[in-house]
Order: sequence, then structure tokens, then C-alpha cells
Amino acid sequence: MADPAKRKRIVVIGSGFGGMAAVKGLKRIDAEITLVDRTNHHLFQPLLYQVATAALSPADIATASRALLRHQPNVGVLMAEVTGIDKERRLVHLAGGRDLPYDFLVLAVGAAYSFFGHGSWRRYAPTLKTLTDALSIRARLLSAFEKAEECGDPQLIKKLMTFVVVGAGPTGVELAGTIAELARSTLARDFKAIDPRSARVILCEAGDRALAAFPRRLSEYAAKALQSLGVELRFGEAVKEIDGHGLMVGETRIEAANVLWCAGTEARPAANWLGVAAARNGAVIVGPDCAVRDWPNIFAIGDVASCDDGSGKALPGLAPVAKQQGKYVAKVIKARLAGMPAPGPFRYRNYGTMAIIGRSRAVADFGGFTLTGFPAWLTWSLVHLMLLVDFRSRLTVYVNWSWAWFTYGRGARLLMRGTEEEASRPPDAAR
Amino acid sequence: MADPAKRKRIVVIGSGFGGMAAVKGLKRIDAEITLVDRTNHHLFQPLLYQVATAALSPADIATASRALLRHQPNVGVLMAEVTGIDKERRLVHLAGGRDLPYDFLVLAVGAAYSFFGHGSWRRYAPTLKTLTDALSIRARLLSAFEKAEECGDPQLIKKLMTFVVVGAGPTGVELAGTIAELARSTLARDFKAIDPRSARVILCEAGDRALAAFPRRLSEYAAKALQSLGVELRFGEAVKEIDGHGLMVGETRIEAANVLWCAGTEARPAANWLGVAAARNGAVIVGPDCAVRDWPNIFAIGDVASCDDGSGKALPGLAPVAKQQGKYVAKVIKARLAGMPAPGPFRYRNYGTMAIIGRSRAVADFGGFTLTGFPAWLTWSLVHLMLLVDFRSRLTVYVNWSWAWFTYGRGARLLMRGTEEEASRPPDAAR
Repeated sequence: MADPAKRKRIVVIGSGFGGMAAVKGLKRIDAEITLVDRTNHHLFQPLLYQVATAALSPADIATASRALLRHQPNVGVLMAEVTGIDKERRLVHLAGGRDLPYDFLVLAVGAAYSFFGHGSWRRYAPTLKTLTDALSIRARLLSAFEKAEECGDPQLIKKLMTFVVVGAGPTGVELAGTIAELARSTLARDFKAIDPRSARVILCEAGDRALAAFPRRLSEYAAKALQSLGVELRFGEAVKEIDGHGLMVGETRIEAANVLWCAGTEARPAANWLGVAAARNGAVIVGPDCAVRDWPNIFAIGDVASCDDGSGKALPGLAPVAKQQGKYVAKVIKARLAGMPAPGPFRYRNYGTMAIIGRSRAVADFGGFTLTGFPAWLTWSLVHLMLLVDFRSRLTVYVNWSWAWFTYGRGARLLMRGTEEEASRPPDAAR
Repeated sequence: MADPAKRKRIVVIGSGFGGMAAVKGLKRIDAEITLVDRTNHHLFQPLLYQVATAALSPADIATASRALLRHQPNVGVLMAEVTGIDKERRLVHLAGGRDLPYDFLVLAVGAAYSFFGHGSWRRYAPTLKTLTDALSIRARLLSAFEKAEECGDPQLIKKLMTFVVVGAGPTGVELAGTIAELARSTLARDFKAIDPRSARVILCEAGDRALAAFPRRLSEYAAKALQSLGVELRFGEAVKEIDGHGLMVGETRIEAANVLWCAGTEARPAANWLGVAAARNGAVIVGPDCAVRDWPNIFAIGDVASCDDGSGKALPGLAPVAKQQGKYVAKVIKARLAGMPAPGPFRYRNYGTMAIIGRSRAVADFGGFTLTGFPAWLTWSLVHLMLLVDFRSRLTVYVNWSWAWFTYGRGARLLMRGTEEEASRPPDAAR
């Protein structure tokens, strides 16, 4: 084992699919790895919409990073906020004034939703990226029905029971489909003054179809499946304004108490931290080895990186891309530490993409070969069950899913009352 | 069926064990029942400490009241805050100005922790009564370790890793034991800079023993079991002061970033709403039929009621008391509606009481017959599994428990970052 004083320091920022794959890829090396994240967990984001729609609990889709990395002694996990990077002095600045020195840096901080310059809409149209987002959307959805039941005002009931999802990418389609199912099946018989089945669920998309990244045939299937669930589709019109009472879509005003934003994404501000070139969506432009130009010891992977797919197009912001890049970057770093030649340029292997629309409805695209309906849904379910990170989550999710599937019930329909303190948020006392 | 206009209105306030038992007891009657609660769920409070210590998720121990009562068409569920009662005009006042008329009223609003006149301590010493409380305590416990790992200051580390539980009743004993297990087993190998096993867990009690409501032999077993888990016991000294940095116990100052309050309870303000006589702890004094004196159509049950046990002593604040009173009151109301003679006075049947100390350690008191250790723990586990309200919860809890028992792991170790909105709390927008 090398002299500890000379041991190389690798800092990985972000405990998502990319960051976690990078850390795990560096398993047996003699280096000091630090995984920094604003939360203490790895989140299985593809199922986040199920937490938002009360089918799963946060613990079903998230695991403490420390627990996941317990058997990897060369890693330390740090829950902290990154405020900047000094690439000359090789330091990561943390909130609170602490600096973290590195020899290699892997940026895997992901992306956030973009409001295309309309920052004020954020207040009225929540997005779905974190567990906190999911719980907040869940509280909003469930309390809309509770308030409608109680209020006694037909105008307000109509507004409370109008749910608008903006953006018909995979997350928007999942949310719109699941909200329609929640209203039409799960909650259908639970209220006296209102009929949840009369809820309007509207999916708005500026483009001309849902799931634009999929073949047109699958988009058409998705549109039909959504309509059969009772979702109204509004394609080809942009959202022009969102306020506390509704939104303008094209020339139409829709009164709605619940607007969810699933439209464009933008990378988190890592390019600013570095002071390097960024793509149009703010992503850090990286070379074929996932390193930042002129800074061969700084890598960016996943949604925060803009990486050429080999044909001049940027790779899509998908979990498998992030995972494969994380693994790849671990190999590059290992080769460098060992003084071996670097592996060839990164190549993304597309094993297929899937999107789910609702109970028994999904689409899957495996290149030449596509699936829709129940076979696609079954494939989706099996793959996601397999992908879940640890056995415990897998088993609990399986129990919850099976139960929900057979009963149309939702286990996690809980609304809590706030006390003076906020739930699940680390308190700032005792600092 | 009677004329709907003449149908009697029964309002039940509180969806805990008592209120839910009353509502379920009124299943087949021709009346209009309204269940009012500040939350939308029934909470299985005996397992709340497991949510606070990251073993279970909120959805494992709570179920939406609407879902529980779906098959009871004579009940409406209302999520609302009660602000007062007009007993002359038979109205329940709700926040927002709405009034709820009743013919019969059942008060089952439970109790809160009492700070014995030291209201300012509440800020520093959270209590455990609701799901929000449990998530807030969980965030506090887990982030104490995260902050200690990061801070690098030995004094602060010591303070962050000192956990003080005030009050050695069942909840205090459960919490102290489980926090000690969390530090010594679950988190033991997860940190680099700190050793969670060096955490101090202190249980303070003004009385001379733990679990004062149990036979002395069981108190002694509990004390030994707690000590073997590494809990320091401080009995016979009252807490004199609590601030943001620690507390004074007798003449000793303890620096601690985490103080949890599990001491005395006081009834919620129902006696004030009614303007009737209250017991010393604020509970509504009721007669042998659980009705308020001079107001035979108003009942109080569970922790909010002070009910003579037949020998001049008040019944204890236990879930089985509340449940049995709920069932009993339903029978009284049914008899009155049917013009039949009322049942005899309420009699509590004590089937035994239990308290859990940690993994494989518990005490159980069945009157003449007591259990300790693994047999008590097994009995406790089986009984609580059986008591959980619906099949889904039961199965998921079973999976989580088995997994946690075999691995010493904790599934729900999640810390979330706040966004501008608070998680799980119903938003006030769109009102």
C-alpha cells in the first residue's frame, strides 16, 4: 500500500446514477475517495413519480449512501453543499467555508428543470427532481381533493380538481397517467361532496407529440393510452403564463390549482463553478474521455455533461448514459493512477429505453424492436425491480406494487400537519 | 330508512384509536357521521418511535382514513381544524369559519406532551406525537451524525453525539434504546471521522425508575436492558433548564445538541372548547357512560377524557382504553337512537401492557403474569403486527422488520434538502 500522505484524492460530486457508478468502479484502488452530495442518499429517480403519486414511500426508492458504500473502505461520504471549484488550486469549496482538495474530480450533479427564463413560474408549477419535490407534489395533489371536498364552492371545486402537467416527456406522461388513475380509480369512491372521477387531467406539450425521443408509432400509442385513462392532450401550443390560479396555453386560459412542470431541463451550475465552456442547456462540454478540455483531471458525467455521441449529437440525459459514463471514468482514473494507457473514447451502449403510462400500459424501444401495452409494462416493471439498488428496497417495492396493482389502492396517501419544524429536513440548530 | 332531513348527525373529532373505534362501531346505523381530524390518516402510534429512528416509513404505520372507511357509506371524512364548540347550539366550529352541526358529539382528540409550564423548552426538545414529529426527530438524529462527521471540532462532535431523552415512560425507553442501537449497530461502521459507537445516550427521569406504570421487577429489567445497550440512566433528578446547547439535570449541566421530550402529557384543549370541568392534566371529566356531565349528547374518550376506573382512580392513557371507550360510546349512541335502554357503565378490560426496549428486549405485564426479554419481545412483535390496521401495512412492516432484525440495518435513513416548499405539508395556496 502506498504512503497515505501520497495517496491520491478523488472527489465525486453527486450521488446519483453517475456518481455512484464512478465510486463503485473505483472499489479496489488505493486512493482516498470522497462522495459529496446535498442529500445523504442515492435516489432511484425513475420511480420518483410513484412517490409523488402516493404509491411508494421515500424509503422504497432511496437508500443512504453510507449504507450502500459501507463495504468500500476507500470512500468517505460527505453531506454538504458545493459552492464553487478552484481548478488551479484543485479545491472544491463547500458551504460553511471548508475546502476539499482533489487530484481527480468527477462532476455528476445532474440537471434541474428549466423554466426558459420564466423563473417566477417556479413558485406556481413545482418540478419533480428530489424526494422533497415528490412529497411536496403528493401533498399538493391529495390536499386538492381534501379542499375540494370541504369548500362547497363549485367554481373552486372545478379549479382544485384541474391538474395540468406541462411537458410530455417520460416524466410528464408518467405523472399525467398516474394522476388520472389516482382520481379515477384509487380515490373514486372515497369522497362524499365531490366525485374524483370528474377531475380534469391535462397534458400540455409545445411539440406535436408525446415522448418525442421515441419512434412516432410509440408516441401515438402513448397518446391513445393517455386518452383512454381520461387525460386531455394539448399538443402544439406553448405555455405563455402561469400564475397562482392557472395558466395560459396558446390563447386558452385554464383555471387550475395544480400545475406541474416537466418541461425542459438545464444542467446544474457546474460550468459556472469551473468557468469553462457550456452547451446551450448549461451542461459542461467534455471530450471523448469525459474530461473537461484543458483539465484532464476534471470529469463531467451524466446530465451535467454534454458529451458527443460520436456522430456530432449530444448524448441524451438518461440514467444508463450516466451509469456507463461513471463506470468509464472510473476506468480512466484507474489507468492513470496505474500509469497504464487510457481506455478508448467513451461509447454509449443503448440497451433500449422505456416509458410508463399507467397500470399495464407502457412503451419500450429496443432499436429495431418496440413493445407497447402490457408486455412493455411487464418488461418495465421487471427491469426496474431488478435495477433497484438493494434487496430490501426491491422486496418492499414488490409488496407495494403487487398490492397496489390488485387493489388500485395507494399506500402512501398521507398528509401531515406542519409543526414549527419542517419534516425530514436537517435542522439548522446546533451548528 | 328514515327521512334524510331527520337523520341524526354524529360528529367524531379525532381519527386515533378512540375516534376510529367509535366510527367503526356505528357501522350499520342510519345516521350521518362525520369524522374530523387535522390530518387525513389514522396513525398506529405505538410504532411511531420506529419512524423517528428510521426503521419504518410513515406509510408503514399510517393509513388514509378515507381508505379505512371506504366501505362505510354513512361516514364522511373531513380534514379540518376544530377551533371551538358551541354546546348550546350544537355546533363544532372549524377553522375557516365553517360550522358543523351535531346531535351527538364524540371528542377523541388525544393528548399532547406537557412541558410543565416551561413552554420555551418546546423549541429545543421536540416531542413525538405525529408523523411530522417523527420525521423531524429522524432528521435531527441522522443529521447530528452527518454534522459531526463533517465539523472537525472535538467539542462540537461531543455535543452533537450526545442524545438526551427526558422521561422514562414507554416512549422514552423505546427511543433511548433504539437510538443506542442505531449508534452502536446500524451506523457503527458508516463514518470515517467519528465513531458512532462513542455516542452518549442519556435517559433522564425525575422519578426513581423507568416504566413506573409497570411492576417494579419489570422496571429493574428495563433499566438493566437499557444499560446493556449503552444507555446512561439518570433517575431521581428533575430537568431544570433546557436551551439550544444542552440541559441542566439536577445540578449537572449536560452539553447536548439533541434533547427529546417524552415526559408528562396533558389533554388537548377540548375542556376549554366546552367550558366544562377538567382534570389536573386538562382532560374532560366524564361520567360512567363516557358523557360529559349535564351534556349527555357529548362524549369524551381516550387520552382527552378523565374517566373513573370504578375505584376512584382515572383510567390510564393507553390505546386499548381509547379503543374500548370508542366501541362503548358507539353502543350508547346506538341504544339512544333506537330508544333502547343504555348499556351499563364503561368498564375497562385490561388484557395486559407491554413496552419494548430494543432488539429482542421487552417487558410485558399481564396482571399476575409477567414476561421479559426475548419472549416478551416476540409477544410484543406478534401483537403489534396483528394490530396494524390493514393487510398492506402488516406485510410491508413485516418485510422491513425482518430485514432490519437480521441486518441491523435501517431502511428509512433519508435526509432531504428543503426546497422553498415544505414536504408533506398541505400547501396553503389555492385557498
